[in-house]
Amino acid sequence: VLSPVMTNNITEDIEVLVFLPQNNSYLFSYARVAPAILYAQQRLKIEGGQYSGFLFNIQFENSDCVNDAMFMLADRSCGQKPDLILGPVCEYEAAAVVRLASHWNIPVISAGALAAGFSNKKTEFSHLTRIAPSYVKMAEIFTAMFEHFTWKTALLVYEDDKEERNCYFTLEGVYHLMADYNIKTYAVSQENRLDADDILQKIYDTEVVIMCMGADKIREIMLAAHRQQFTNGSYVFFNVELFNASSYGNGTWKKGDKYDNAARQAYASLNTVTLLRTVKPEFENFSVEMKKSIEETGLDDCQDCVNIFVEGFHDAMLLYAIALHEAMRNGYNKKNGMKITSLMWNRTFEGIAGQVSMDANGDRNGDFSLMAMTNVEAGTYEVVANYFGVNGTFQLLPAFNIDSFTLRGRHKAHTEIPS
Amino acid sequence: VLSPVMTNNITEDIEVLVFLPQNNSYLFSYARVAPAILYAQQRLKIEGGQYSGFLFNIQFENSDCVNDAMFMLADRSCGQKPDLILGPVCEYEAAAVVRLASHWNIPVISAGALAAGFSNKKTEFSHLTRIAPSYVKMAEIFTAMFEHFTWKTALLVYEDDKEERNCYFTLEGVYHLMADYNIKTYAVSQENRLDADDILQKIYDTEVVIMCMGADKIREIMLAAHRQQFTNGSYVFFNVELFNASSYGNGTWKKGDKYDNAARQAYASLNTVTLLRTVKPEFENFSVEMKKSIEETGLDDCQDCVNIFVEGFHDAMLLYAIALHEAMRNGYNKKNGMKITSLMWNRTFEGIAGQVSMDANGDRNGDFSLMAMTNVEAGTYEVVANYFGVNGTFQLLPAFNIDSFTLRGRHKAHTEIPS
Repeated sequence: VLSPVMTNNITEDIEVLVFLPQNNSYLFSYARVAPAILYAQQRLKIEGGQYSGFLFNIQFENSDCVNDAMFMLADRSCGQKPDLILGPVCEYEAAAVVRLASHWNIPVISAGALAAGFSNKKTEFSHLTRIAPSYVKMAEIFTAMFEHFTWKTALLVYEDDKEERNCYFTLEGVYHLMADYNIKTYAVSQENRLDADDILQKIYDTEVVIMCMGADKIREIMLAAHRQQFTNGSYVFFNVELFNASSYGNGTWKKGDKYDNAARQAYASLNTVTLLRTVKPEFENFSVEMKKSIEETGLDDCQDCVNIFVEGFHDAMLLYAIALHEAMRNGYNKKNGMKITSLMWNRTFEGIAGQVSMDANGDRNGDFSLMAMTNVEAGTYEVVANYFGVNGTFQLLPAFNIDSFTLRGRHKAHTEIPS
Repeated sequence: VLSPVMTNNITEDIEVLVFLPQNNSYLFSYARVAPAILYAQQRLKIEGGQYSGFLFNIQFENSDCVNDAMFMLADRSCGQKPDLILGPVCEYEAAAVVRLASHWNIPVISAGALAAGFSNKKTEFSHLTRIAPSYVKMAEIFTAMFEHFTWKTALLVYEDDKEERNCYFTLEGVYHLMADYNIKTYAVSQENRLDADDILQKIYDTEVVIMCMGADKIREIMLAAHRQQFTNGSYVFFNVELFNASSYGNGTWKKGDKYDNAARQAYASLNTVTLLRTVKPEFENFSVEMKKSIEETGLDDCQDCVNIFVEGFHDAMLLYAIALHEAMRNGYNKKNGMKITSLMWNRTFEGIAGQVSMDANGDRNGDFSLMAMTNVEAGTYEVVANYFGVNGTFQLLPAFNIDSFTLRGRHKAHTEIPS
């Protein structure tokens, strides 16, 4: 509010090094995310007010999700080091880059690096700010539900590719946060055939099943569960599908084969946890612009193309500008990466899609939605509850039906314990 | 044999960067290993024959077993890069260093980096040569025994510290190599109390138990197994104790408490796998020199101070000299790290303690010993069998007693299967 006379005159050249994959199979590929970063750059320049004196020189480098980004960064140690690094998203590659960047006092902002290990900012990940909600943040919707519905036990079933390990890291977040509950895990390897019956054996003495897997495997398990009458209300099933919920909402039970009818009934017991999508009027313009830019690069399918990675890397530019401005106003310079990083933490600001709240550890608070089948005849889904990370509230919506979350056929077992 | 006239005239300056921990709690600390590297340097200079033209300029840097070595290497990318890197030993730190060194075409020789993951030299670990037998090599003595005694099932019990994870990686080698057997795993966390009964429950349907843990925990499990009569011949127990076997042979069953007698009896079922120690006459001089150097640095306890790391890093210098000489004789120069690396592989040479055989993948073939209690009255141990990695032979020694390796009370269970 108190704005010293000189603040509008802060100018600075900022070298930004961005690591994004050229490979378009990633939701966070260069073709999808670069337009958002350039959009933020333009907006800061033209409408940026006190930030319009920042001149961002943005260099994009390929990330192969293995070692390319780290090699590129190490190779540059000789010349001028960047002032800011955006990305990488992939866990292992991000780990190496963040270590080196922290060692060199360079802030890193990523819409990835979502694994639980990055939460420890004490040492090697000190300069990392996470602009998308981490997997541990996602897990909060599960602790909220477990508390609300007084569940005690869960089986985590995840597909592990032993490479990027997204599903492993996703459910690791749940495992990490739910240490006080009785949690078992089951890994499904990508190579071997899925043994749904073996998984269902492990389900036996748990209440809740939380899965992260490809849609076909989820369907196979739900069909097997349905055959064994595990979908009669004695278990609650969840599927975590953070990043491409749009493809899910249509109902992946439908495959056009002879099992569609059984799958539709089975999926009445399957609920999906996904990111809460907010839309504010200004977002429409951004979204239209992004789709245009992305389509110009020849990417046809733009269904998931304005996703959390696209928004996150856009907002990363804003957050950095806010923090750098505050640092410089207080007499620090752009090379003080630790100071600038700390000013990005524990702060709320207006992002492209809505309010962005960073916690005191430099990790974005997350809002998540719970989707459930609300019309079994039609096999259609609705959002039935939301979880808001800032204040930890779990909000039931009108479409919520308590029956789907009440365990049946269990009371007998529970009362038997004292005997 | 055919030695061209000019070969003795090959001279070259070689920059060696060595990563060893200053912290003496490591068996491969600077104080222990540096004298061996300097000994090799001296020997090559004075008695090196065709290698005496190599002038090694050796720089030691601290390794903290986390990130220090990688940071140090990255920081040097600007100035002159080293021609050869020795170490680091610790798995995670070595991974980062080897990746960067491979990217920069610098050969790395380590007596560590023993985990299974490093076996894949196709991409990121292309420049790594392992001068000590890896954990997968150690696992060969188990496959040899499983074949010899026709065992089928095992439980691997390991203590996991989630930091250096030595026992995790040790038994991972077994798990990796024994994919065709029925293997289960059990992780013991360092923080929680050991639940020996829970472990013994898991033992129930296996034949063999292979453990890697601190001596106190091993004793606790063996005492519990003894109480439950699991040491009556229906199970065979193993303890992997690769690097400080000397402290083991004295019998860690003895603690001077009231359980000594039971522990002694229990340990009649416990066999230890350790590195095979060879001694040749020249080794004595080396050993005496090492002990002198190490004691000069103020390290009192020199019991384990001439160990595989000390020998390995000594031999690393010889192996590099042999390969570099061959490369230069064929017109390559010292900056061709890939060529020099390939010349270190698939080669046998005379190391300080005996013959060193490198396989075609650049990993040292390993020889291992099996120790068993041969006098239960006295509770004393002897080597009862040896395994030789070069030709895969498993050799029984006179002290070997077949009774200790024959599973009893099992035939009934086996014949029941067809019914």
